Amino acid sequence: MAGPATTDVRAARLRRLAGGVVRTKRTRSDLAYYGGTPGFAEDIRVGTPNVPAKDRYLELVGEAIDRRWLSNLGPLVRRFEALAAERTLRAHNTATNNATTALQVAVKACGVTGEVIMPSFTFVASAHAMDWIGLTPVFADVDPETGTLDPRSVAKAVSPRTGGILGVHIWGNLCDTAGLDDVAREAGVPLVFDSAQAFGCLPLRPAPAGAAEVFSFHATKILNCFEGGLVATDSAEVHARVRSMHNFGFDETMDVVGPGTNAKMNESSAAMGIASVEHLDDMLKVYRALYTRYRTGLADVPGVSLMAAPQGQTHNHQYVVVRVDPEAAGLDRDRLMAVLDAENVRTKKYFSPGCHTMPPYRRETVHTPVDLSVTETLTERVLALPTGLSVTPDDVDRICDVIAAAVRYA
Amino acid sequence: MAGPATTDVRAARLRRLAGGVVRTKRTRSDLAYYGGTPGFAEDIRVGTPNVPAKDRYLELVGEAIDRRWLSNLGPLVRRFEALAAERTLRAHNTATNNATTALQVAVKACGVTGEVIMPSFTFVASAHAMDWIGLTPVFADVDPETGTLDPRSVAKAVSPRTGGILGVHIWGNLCDTAGLDDVAREAGVPLVFDSAQAFGCLPLRPAPAGAAEVFSFHATKILNCFEGGLVATDSAEVHARVRSMHNFGFDETMDVVGPGTNAKMNESSAAMGIASVEHLDDMLKVYRALYTRYRTGLADVPGVSLMAAPQGQTHNHQYVVVRVDPEAAGLDRDRLMAVLDAENVRTKKYFSPGCHTMPPYRRETVHTPVDLSVTETLTERVLALPTGLSVTPDDVDRICDVIAAAVRYA
Repeated sequence: MAGPATTDVRAARLRRLAGGVVRTKRTRSDLAYYGGTPGFAEDIRVGTPNVPAKDRYLELVGEAIDRRWLSNLGPLVRRFEALAAERTLRAHNTATNNATTALQVAVKACGVTGEVIMPSFTFVASAHAMDWIGLTPVFADVDPETGTLDPRSVAKAVSPRTGGILGVHIWGNLCDTAGLDDVAREAGVPLVFDSAQAFGCLPLRPAPAGAAEVFSFHATKILNCFEGGLVATDSAEVHARVRSMHNFGFDETMDVVGPGTNAKMNESSAAMGIASVEHLDDMLKVYRALYTRYRTGLADVPGVSLMAAPQGQTHNHQYVVVRVDPEAAGLDRDRLMAVLDAENVRTKKYFSPGCHTMPPYRRETVHTPVDLSVTETLTERVLALPTGLSVTPDDVDRICDVIAAAVRYA
Repeated sequence: MAGPATTDVRAARLRRLAGGVVRTKRTRSDLAYYGGTPGFAEDIRVGTPNVPAKDRYLELVGEAIDRRWLSNLGPLVRRFEALAAERTLRAHNTATNNATTALQVAVKACGVTGEVIMPSFTFVASAHAMDWIGLTPVFADVDPETGTLDPRSVAKAVSPRTGGILGVHIWGNLCDTAGLDDVAREAGVPLVFDSAQAFGCLPLRPAPAGAAEVFSFHATKILNCFEGGLVATDSAEVHARVRSMHNFGFDETMDVVGPGTNAKMNESSAAMGIASVEHLDDMLKVYRALYTRYRTGLADVPGVSLMAAPQGQTHNHQYVVVRVDPEAAGLDRDRLMAVLDAENVRTKKYFSPGCHTMPPYRRETVHTPVDLSVTETLTERVLALPTGLSVTPDDVDRICDVIAAAVRYA
């Protein structure tokens, strides 16, 4: 990896070496969970922000301040939109203040109404964005291998009240876009994609792209804008509505022509986006290398398997997610999480619980027409492990060592 | 005014002196509208952002980057909330990404449903925020002197469908909060205030404060966070719902307990807010001095009068708004705007047109039960003039000179 992005890695390495930590877990009592010394002197986390070019960011935001143009579709936002377009390969790209408001804008701009069929197995923001603007999430089940929305389950959930379908490219795994496109066309409703976790992921061959898709540049994403999002579409009509809606319903002459909100990205966020996207390829290399390292390190651990990255796409490997089979591993996901936590390895249950178990979306509140058993199983078994610019290959080796020992001494 | 904030003023003065501009308009043909030389070599605008402490901002945001905590209720957001609390004098203050999402959160947290009685005479975001989340704006008329929502008109608009009242402290003029509070209590609905333009404005004596109020720190406001907002309330219950809703419906243990969105302020915005609020008193002095200068400069101009700042409150004088009486002035607001525009003085019709004339909110779409004749008159007559750190007293004198000449030679 090239220059600036290595700074994080070096700092992380020094930080951890300074702790004089245990290198391997040779006995049960070496595990901190059973009384041993924690493997990491300081927390190692999922989602520590990547800042590959601090000085470049400070330079850009300083220029924005000097020109006294801090928001309202400024030159940095325009430039970031152009740079992002090179990665989404969509004709029209609108930067936003975050992905949740971007989702609201996208589904409104696509004409989604009534009930929206979507996975329960996603970050709650996907469902909240629908509910916030008066749409009703209807949950369908997901594929057990990829974790993405299953078109067969969606087809079963379609009803006369269905007004749209929201696929989620969870962990950067692209949905079965062709299968979802078939169901959406049959139902006569718009198909929108929540690509919050999929910036940098593209199909290797042309694939149905939906009416619009939404990316996230939240602090914890591979590319961050402090907070930020993007609505991307190939439709000039949808784009015109997105542009207007994200800026108070204004048209290009600043007349209010329809509904709207304030979803605008500001110049500081765009500055961070520009500074970071210049290092995106380097960052993708780091994530890919760490993913491969985990795959090797966990290859022989029974019952703990990396969720597959689907074929036929490029992948950002932004999330390294294992699935814990309690029978084969001898411990369940929550116990493994506790063992890692004792070592100061802060993992995340991405994504658990399922949205359909949360108070606003329980069966007694919203209509849930289909079986969600794959979702139920996955939400009990998945665990996201630390990755990113603040994680070193050595860290990964030691995390894998902890996991192997946790299973061995379970 | 103290140190850093003077930088803007000096730069603006040099910029304009460099143009070799005409100092006074002694004949009709001195006016650029009639062929003369523009009075300002470069644009002088309403709403040029104030950045009183660039270096301090860069220091704070650099620290946030170094600690790799860029959003998610970071230490700078917490500090900004505490500093803002000293100005709102409310018990509970939640920073947000902008005021439009803050309004959405505030009215949901206060339990507003159905129809919301509010002024048409406001920035469209007030109405859009209601409409975005499925509430219906119902417009009432405003007071001709202060431009704020008239409780008598609101009382006439109340119906069984009324689910809330939204007062707007337009231009920093505080509403008749006691009058609105009476109507809201009689109707049994929550009263919320849109204080987007009123940061730094407080009643001199205790006054009804509504269930919640929302401030804006948009780039063009006296205090800016690039983009930003704040929900302030004295109710612990409302506050708990605001905190949860603005962060995906999470409670303090990160369980989803209700609806939500992403309305979080990020650390860069908070850094700008902290750096700026440290200079707020100095900035308020500048605005007050410029307002007074306008008042003196326009005192003898027939038909062009400054909108009154109400008694009984502190005022931020963030907007200097004139009302043009076409009979007395011999020209109407739009002609005066054109005359100023020719001089490179970029004014704004704050706020025109009324929301009730915009496509989403026309009479044929939404229920408009009461007469809006004061709103109709004000929207045709008001004009906001440049003020802020980038405007000098000399600029104000020359703008007043143009206005006087425009009337004299109309």
